[in-house]
Amino acid sequence: MTKTFNYRLVFRILGLLLCTETFFLLLAAGVALIYGESDLLPLLESAGITALGGLLGYLAGLRAPRQLGVREGYCIVAVVWVFFSLFGMLPFLLNGSILSPTDAFFETMSGFTTTGASVLTDIESLPHGLLFWRSLIQWLGGMGIVVLSLAVLPFLGGNMQLFMAEVPGPTYDKLQPRIKNTARQLWGLYVVLTGIEAIMLYIGGMSAFDAVCHALTTMATGGYSTKQASIAYWDSPFIQYTIILFMVLAGTNFALLYWAFIKRRFDKLWHDEELRTYLLTIAAFTIAITLGLVMYKGVHSAADFESTFRESLFQVVSIITTTGFSTADFMLWKPVVWALLLLLMLSGGSAGSTSGGLKIIRLLLVCKNGYYEMKRLIHPKAILPVRINQHVVPENTISNIHAFTVIYVGIIIISTFVVALSGMPLGESFGATLTAISNVGPGIGSCGPAGSFAALPTFTKWFLAFIMLIGRLELFTVLVLFSPTFWKK
Amino acid sequence: MTKTFNYRLVFRILGLLLCTETFFLLLAAGVALIYGESDLLPLLESAGITALGGLLGYLAGLRAPRQLGVREGYCIVAVVWVFFSLFGMLPFLLNGSILSPTDAFFETMSGFTTTGASVLTDIESLPHGLLFWRSLIQWLGGMGIVVLSLAVLPFLGGNMQLFMAEVPGPTYDKLQPRIKNTARQLWGLYVVLTGIEAIMLYIGGMSAFDAVCHALTTMATGGYSTKQASIAYWDSPFIQYTIILFMVLAGTNFALLYWAFIKRRFDKLWHDEELRTYLLTIAAFTIAITLGLVMYKGVHSAADFESTFRESLFQVVSIITTTGFSTADFMLWKPVVWALLLLLMLSGGSAGSTSGGLKIIRLLLVCKNGYYEMKRLIHPKAILPVRINQHVVPENTISNIHAFTVIYVGIIIISTFVVALSGMPLGESFGATLTAISNVGPGIGSCGPAGSFAALPTFTKWFLAFIMLIGRLELFTVLVLFSPTFWKK
Repeated sequence: MTKTFNYRLVFRILGLLLCTETFFLLLAAGVALIYGESDLLPLLESAGITALGGLLGYLAGLRAPRQLGVREGYCIVAVVWVFFSLFGMLPFLLNGSILSPTDAFFETMSGFTTTGASVLTDIESLPHGLLFWRSLIQWLGGMGIVVLSLAVLPFLGGNMQLFMAEVPGPTYDKLQPRIKNTARQLWGLYVVLTGIEAIMLYIGGMSAFDAVCHALTTMATGGYSTKQASIAYWDSPFIQYTIILFMVLAGTNFALLYWAFIKRRFDKLWHDEELRTYLLTIAAFTIAITLGLVMYKGVHSAADFESTFRESLFQVVSIITTTGFSTADFMLWKPVVWALLLLLMLSGGSAGSTSGGLKIIRLLLVCKNGYYEMKRLIHPKAILPVRINQHVVPENTISNIHAFTVIYVGIIIISTFVVALSGMPLGESFGATLTAISNVGPGIGSCGPAGSFAALPTFTKWFLAFIMLIGRLELFTVLVLFSPTFWKK
Repeated sequence: MTKTFNYRLVFRILGLLLCTETFFLLLAAGVALIYGESDLLPLLESAGITALGGLLGYLAGLRAPRQLGVREGYCIVAVVWVFFSLFGMLPFLLNGSILSPTDAFFETMSGFTTTGASVLTDIESLPHGLLFWRSLIQWLGGMGIVVLSLAVLPFLGGNMQLFMAEVPGPTYDKLQPRIKNTARQLWGLYVVLTGIEAIMLYIGGMSAFDAVCHALTTMATGGYSTKQASIAYWDSPFIQYTIILFMVLAGTNFALLYWAFIKRRFDKLWHDEELRTYLLTIAAFTIAITLGLVMYKGVHSAADFESTFRESLFQVVSIITTTGFSTADFMLWKPVVWALLLLLMLSGGSAGSTSGGLKIIRLLLVCKNGYYEMKRLIHPKAILPVRINQHVVPENTISNIHAFTVIYVGIIIISTFVVALSGMPLGESFGATLTAISNVGPGIGSCGPAGSFAALPTFTKWFLAFIMLIGRLELFTVLVLFSPTFWKK
């Protein structure tokens, strides 16, 4: 039944996708040209090499049969992220801003997967073209490389499987009958929100360049900043609240944003259980951490209270949306407080958003099902299906979500041990793994908001980059490639 | 549809069950009589009070309707464990061996649930009757209070639900068509194995008293010792290997032991996937930890190697079977090594054994299902049921196991925070929670093999005792009592 794996078609599509990366590299070269800095040539060279790679791939698959199978689909989605990172790291290497290929790959994969964990320790020293490229890769990875291609490139057609393999979380709402149009609506909304945020940040006092870069990485829930101090660099409540607002939006299901902002169907927002849980979680954790900090630090005036509240809210939103910006080093808080933040890392934001983690809806369904299992014990004969937004959730969706959750936790446990082989203490290894798989950015301890991933051994960096990819593509798309069944003829 | 909750029948049955506890208290009093120590009177008084409590319960429910509903069943199983602990702690209090009711309740609940976490810091100072009672409660809790009653008391009849609520793990093998006979077979085997172990330990050089006490707590995978130094007190390879052997047996599904030892169907052992996984896990972790210790400590002779191997094997078996005996303080080993032991705590032994934890079979099914979910992605139309021992596992069993696993992990996470409120560091709080819910005994840090739970605040002790009960009765039996549906008319 299973046909031979169509390698040539995979090459061909990868080749075409690399051409889109070339386009974005040229965009970054344009920024370098404006600022007239050293990174113009490296960016142009990188664009050239990427175009060449794309051309070779295209030619290798020129006469491939056109039909895209299930296996080829998974392979393309997983591999394109690796290739985009391999070519995307060239500007950093060619400009000498990052010296080792390991570090450059880590930084780029951390960018594309919107993790935002960095090996750089002096970000301001980078020229503007590279800073822009660093923000742009997060933005591309946020809404998804393949989803973008589905929106703008004709050759992928309406491949539902490719779409599902890249969009995070189990989604229940198709916006348009055709995948291509859905992808366009999503990307359109993404572009517009990014634009609005950039304008607001500019009004708030950021330079135009910083405003654009931060808008790109906020909407992607990426977390790369153009400043070493991250958002703490701007001590402006307006800027911080703006970023909080757009982080919250970026962590919301884009299908809901589409209904609300484009179709004016605000009732859809109101009745969405995932959104409600997401916002309640933010509120609860913010209140808890604000109270904790107030008790611990003592607050003497209303202004103090506002800034403590803002600090808590910013960190909670930044972590739950898996953005990873910071305005405070939470490692200076009590361990119980940052342990609460670790829980938010595990949870992540909504399905169909740009955030990482397990996703609120999965946790919600898992909790609901647990509660129903107990009800089933008391009423063994009653039929008690799990519902979300008044719809019955099919049994096999529940089963899939459970398998997902358990494998997710299993990978975190095993990876913690693998990272600990680097000599890192276990707690920190756990933090580094969690922040990588949930695509957050900062971990705890030496990898915390004030730390860096620079000091890790080579193997650990490659391993964590792999874990980031597993997290971004939500396990199965990557893991399936390692299953013997996949390659069996 | 739901009838009024039949309180009176619950009272009546609890009353009758307390009479069995009275019998065992008198047995301990017999030991106290032999040694002629101070604890004779306290044990007799406790027996009297327990008998009185039982009589009151029986009289309160004298005219109760006979029919036992589902809700009454769960209530009895959960509540009997609390009552047995409340009455079972009396000898410690009346003899003045433990001064506070909190400590006495913690010690007794830790006993009945076969956890083995202790607040005592000088075990040898206890008189023999109390030491025997402390071992006996573990033995009763190991195979189960209710299971024992099903075996020997006529009034509970063949209540399958009561049986299932107390036997750990999802079991697939009914030994006899009638529950009563199954319960008898299980308890019979349990008694015989305990007897054989006691004889072997006596031959190995223990006093008759110590041999009996350790046989009771080994077969229960309980872990209470009559010595402060636990099994390290006896530096005899024969004694240690004997205990290892019986811990392994106690962590095996008793249904399999029944088939092997009574029906001579050894093929059943051979083909059992859970048993194979259980033994392979022990082997793999022992090899890993032995190698780790050899590299770390350096081993110079064959005798050194044997003792290092024995030390590793003993600790691995003691933790995976959730017994909690120790011959070495694993806190003195590298953190990575005791972190491996934490994984074994989470896993536990086989379903239908006396061990705690998630149970091997659940982890096995969860892993298998995860693998099959990936297969289903590649072959969306294929029907791929999960099988164990060649039998298809029903969908709703998988769903139940997933719900169980997720709630189990969820409780561990939340409880870690609750225990951390005591001021304990997070890592240690995690260890204390894990050791409580999995009914192991020693945790990490101050609660490690060389430490004690004595210094915890009152609230934390009650909380951990509650977590032990949740773990012993495998969540649902206890949690269901806190569900509003349960009490709704």
